[in-house]
Amino acid sequence: MLISEIFIPTLKESPAEAVAMSHKLMIRSGMIRKLSSGLYTYFPIGLRIFRKVENIIREEMNKAGAQEFNPSILTPGELWQKTGRLETFGPVLIQIKDHSGHLNVLGPTHEEVFTEIVRIEISSYKQLPVNFYQIKTKIRDEIRPRYGVMRCREFTMKDAYSFDIDEKGLEETYKKMRQAYKNIFKRCGLNTIIVEEDMGAMGGTASEEFMVESEIGEATLVLCKKCGYAANLERAESLDKIESKKETPEALKEIDTPNQKTIEELTNFLKSSPDKFIKTIVYMADEKPVVVLIRGDLEINEIKLQNALKAVNLELADDVTIKKITKANVGFVGPVGLKNIPIYADHSIKTMSNAVTGANKNDKHIINVDLDRDFKVDEFIDIRTAKEDDLCIKCKSGLIFKKGIEVGHVFKLGYKYTKSMNVKFLDKDNKEKHPIMGCYGIGVDRTIAAVIEQSNDKDGIIWPITVAPFDVVMIVLTRDKKKYQDTTDSLYKGLNEKYEVLMDNREASPGFKFKDADLIGIPVKIILSDKNLAQDKIEVKMRKSGETMLVDKGKILPEIEKIIKEEYKKYEV
Amino acid sequence: MLISEIFIPTLKESPAEAVAMSHKLMIRSGMIRKLSSGLYTYFPIGLRIFRKVENIIREEMNKAGAQEFNPSILTPGELWQKTGRLETFGPVLIQIKDHSGHLNVLGPTHEEVFTEIVRIEISSYKQLPVNFYQIKTKIRDEIRPRYGVMRCREFTMKDAYSFDIDEKGLEETYKKMRQAYKNIFKRCGLNTIIVEEDMGAMGGTASEEFMVESEIGEATLVLCKKCGYAANLERAESLDKIESKKETPEALKEIDTPNQKTIEELTNFLKSSPDKFIKTIVYMADEKPVVVLIRGDLEINEIKLQNALKAVNLELADDVTIKKITKANVGFVGPVGLKNIPIYADHSIKTMSNAVTGANKNDKHIINVDLDRDFKVDEFIDIRTAKEDDLCIKCKSGLIFKKGIEVGHVFKLGYKYTKSMNVKFLDKDNKEKHPIMGCYGIGVDRTIAAVIEQSNDKDGIIWPITVAPFDVVMIVLTRDKKKYQDTTDSLYKGLNEKYEVLMDNREASPGFKFKDADLIGIPVKIILSDKNLAQDKIEVKMRKSGETMLVDKGKILPEIEKIIKEEYKKYEV
Repeated sequence: MLISEIFIPTLKESPAEAVAMSHKLMIRSGMIRKLSSGLYTYFPIGLRIFRKVENIIREEMNKAGAQEFNPSILTPGELWQKTGRLETFGPVLIQIKDHSGHLNVLGPTHEEVFTEIVRIEISSYKQLPVNFYQIKTKIRDEIRPRYGVMRCREFTMKDAYSFDIDEKGLEETYKKMRQAYKNIFKRCGLNTIIVEEDMGAMGGTASEEFMVESEIGEATLVLCKKCGYAANLERAESLDKIESKKETPEALKEIDTPNQKTIEELTNFLKSSPDKFIKTIVYMADEKPVVVLIRGDLEINEIKLQNALKAVNLELADDVTIKKITKANVGFVGPVGLKNIPIYADHSIKTMSNAVTGANKNDKHIINVDLDRDFKVDEFIDIRTAKEDDLCIKCKSGLIFKKGIEVGHVFKLGYKYTKSMNVKFLDKDNKEKHPIMGCYGIGVDRTIAAVIEQSNDKDGIIWPITVAPFDVVMIVLTRDKKKYQDTTDSLYKGLNEKYEVLMDNREASPGFKFKDADLIGIPVKIILSDKNLAQDKIEVKMRKSGETMLVDKGKILPEIEKIIKEEYKKYEV
Repeated sequence: MLISEIFIPTLKESPAEAVAMSHKLMIRSGMIRKLSSGLYTYFPIGLRIFRKVENIIREEMNKAGAQEFNPSILTPGELWQKTGRLETFGPVLIQIKDHSGHLNVLGPTHEEVFTEIVRIEISSYKQLPVNFYQIKTKIRDEIRPRYGVMRCREFTMKDAYSFDIDEKGLEETYKKMRQAYKNIFKRCGLNTIIVEEDMGAMGGTASEEFMVESEIGEATLVLCKKCGYAANLERAESLDKIESKKETPEALKEIDTPNQKTIEELTNFLKSSPDKFIKTIVYMADEKPVVVLIRGDLEINEIKLQNALKAVNLELADDVTIKKITKANVGFVGPVGLKNIPIYADHSIKTMSNAVTGANKNDKHIINVDLDRDFKVDEFIDIRTAKEDDLCIKCKSGLIFKKGIEVGHVFKLGYKYTKSMNVKFLDKDNKEKHPIMGCYGIGVDRTIAAVIEQSNDKDGIIWPITVAPFDVVMIVLTRDKKKYQDTTDSLYKGLNEKYEVLMDNREASPGFKFKDADLIGIPVKIILSDKNLAQDKIEVKMRKSGETMLVDKGKILPEIEKIIKEEYKKYEV
């Protein structure tokens, strides 16, 4: 393609609001433009990249046996009422009343729609398993759009929904999708970290996220570089650096602690360390009060807590409730003597001895508290928030924390939707059963932005050839146009038959052309200059390595073929 | 592809609500399913067809120099305020207030968005002309969805917007687009009629629609089979079958016509024919009254009238206004003696003589009215509604009326958007000018439905090979599976390398398989039966012609290659 045939409005500067490197470079390279807050238009060069990523996703999904559908974005509100998500999805869900007063929802995700399709179309185990997907626009009323296409109001997702006969089947489908995702990201040249999750109360059974390390990531990853353990901080498990040992219990004693409510105040007041305290928090889990204990130097991870309690709603109890249950104000609560209320404790409590807790009397604490002797725990659960000096739960090595962008998500969804929407099939044994679901999402725009975050330099984007807008850019610098017209034309023609070639034959300075080519990030540059052509040579320069070769004019086509083949090979699966 | 790898839920019956053949067959062949009123999901086989049509459109658009963009569906309300379309677009426009109270519009068409892009990105004549397009989901609050995907709430349009330096440039772009559209529909195997339009007040200068003859069409086409004249009834011009000649004018005379208000009542009362009457109607054109005359046997075409008057709003005057202007009630109004009000007349008035009109007195008419002698016309305009016995305006042959589906529209839009959105470029002469726009739309879903409307039989759809879901279906009827496994496998493998093949190797009756293949409409059937294979023969049957061939097993691959090549050739451009 001649550069005059494609509108690529490159810019020297990016808008002030762009902080993420991918956002800056997508604007500067003419890939996208902002229309309004959180709304972007892909320009032709951006769309070329978009389609390549889309195609890689499509190919790998099809290869894994998934089938593409194209449902509507507008969906009937009744489906969302059935699953309760009209209420629970939150304010990003756009609801529209049509002229007849019916409620419609712009589907930000399509569990309801695909479950409805399966409800209607599938009745027998013979039709299962199925894995249906779409690559489609999503529109959300995003509260705080940022980082360009990374978090915006309209974007494209590949979302797949699998329906299996049983958990064993789901496990197989899940593994296939997991492998397909690995293939997709590998082919896009993206290094991802697969991060474990445990979904407890969300109706699912297990899930993993495909994360890309990046400073602008919104998630915190807890990583063990030794054994490869990786988890989202929201779910990460970890071990204490120093193992504590149980001491001989001493006699329980109530002490005065006037106005000393926080762990910090108490450690100062009692000249003790935070790990000697039992933090006692009263929560309301689905409107029922529960007491939760954790060692004073640790923080409760409320997502882990919510999952462990299988609670749909979890919030801190208010002062009135706390007073009613414990007879004391916040800050003086403890497990000793509490009755008729379930007590959950983090594992960190187990090895504590002679601990300090609130006395359930205002301005009083008790010391030398001993688990078992002085109070009972109904259930031990893992609810600690991992810390950077914690150890890996698997191999006890040190953990490191990184920021990450979520580009994909594979998720054993379970029966939440098939049960609430009453989807049944007749199994081999002639019994009606609910199919078990999995769902699998990839953000197309995010994947593109993440590739740029991982692959750029001071000059611009460095595209892996698999998703590059062009394989090759021909930079024509010849002043004696006529003399080298035939060489230029026949090279362009020869390349164009096999590859995607951008020919930059503009009347512009060499610097201008190089800057654009590097900013846009085309993997291979072919440079035609009078000087080299006079010696029947053509220069080839690689965008990524900067490597330069002088190739005999007569050998240029096979040489480029070799180079491009090698480039593609790097991303093969 | 094995038939087990693709979900094709064919049906024997179509739902009762489906009246259009395309709607019935799209449901029955498993191409689509309804999710809710006016909302459909493309199933895998439907999506294969959809993508082929989409690709043909994309290829021809690119070939014609247009460039694909991907803007958001959600668009800021301010853009629509600027062009006034927030008010004028009508109730199908879906408006959404976001969490911050900003108004957004789900773009049912993207003139505003592409004009905004050009406003920001283009500043010099050197960057012009440009022709930008998208192939994208549109969502409308359609009041009466019908005929399946033909008129629904969510559908896919290819919409292109061109920006030229001047009218000459626009003319060239317009011609290119017109040719591209011809190519697209030819390649889709669709016979279209190009229908003229004249857009007057809409801000444009000329437009043409690509129509497909069909009983379920919503438009009425006025066609001349001799010279090829074709127009939408809304705009059609036509001539009287019998030319009337002017008679010698007789003396004006007022007569009593008590309670005789309509042309029908008057023809009975006066024993005269409708073509002797001058119908006189008072309209309000943009809040100003005008008098409009037409011969009594003709109907006023209000769209033509509105365009001729360049009126944004046109409605019948109310009784009070009519009384005030004419001193008479409706039914007794005429042009004689009217003052201070513009009088427009259809050309049919010109040759009338000794005509009858209202006397502008209740219960009175006047006879022997003569144009020029008794009243003056400010302007003659063409506002007659064409009738089936009218003659062609171009060749004076008889006209015929047909129903038609609009599948495409090319439109010289003019300056409406570039002026209201203040888009300017610096021309060669260093002067600021507005670019002139064209817009060009194709309904992707409609094109698919129209192909089916034109190409089906009692057994199902007959796809042109260019848009067929598969080139070939292999129907395996062999009972001795093992014996012919190698033949089947190697044929499938050989075909699969070059073509899109569906292999139906289900455990089902031959009738069942043939019915599905014909319903789905795959162009070429290859039938493998024990009987024929025993003689080293393979049967080939064409979906459209029904032609059957017995081919030597060893020659089957080259034979199929020849057949498929011939099929594609039919749709080449």
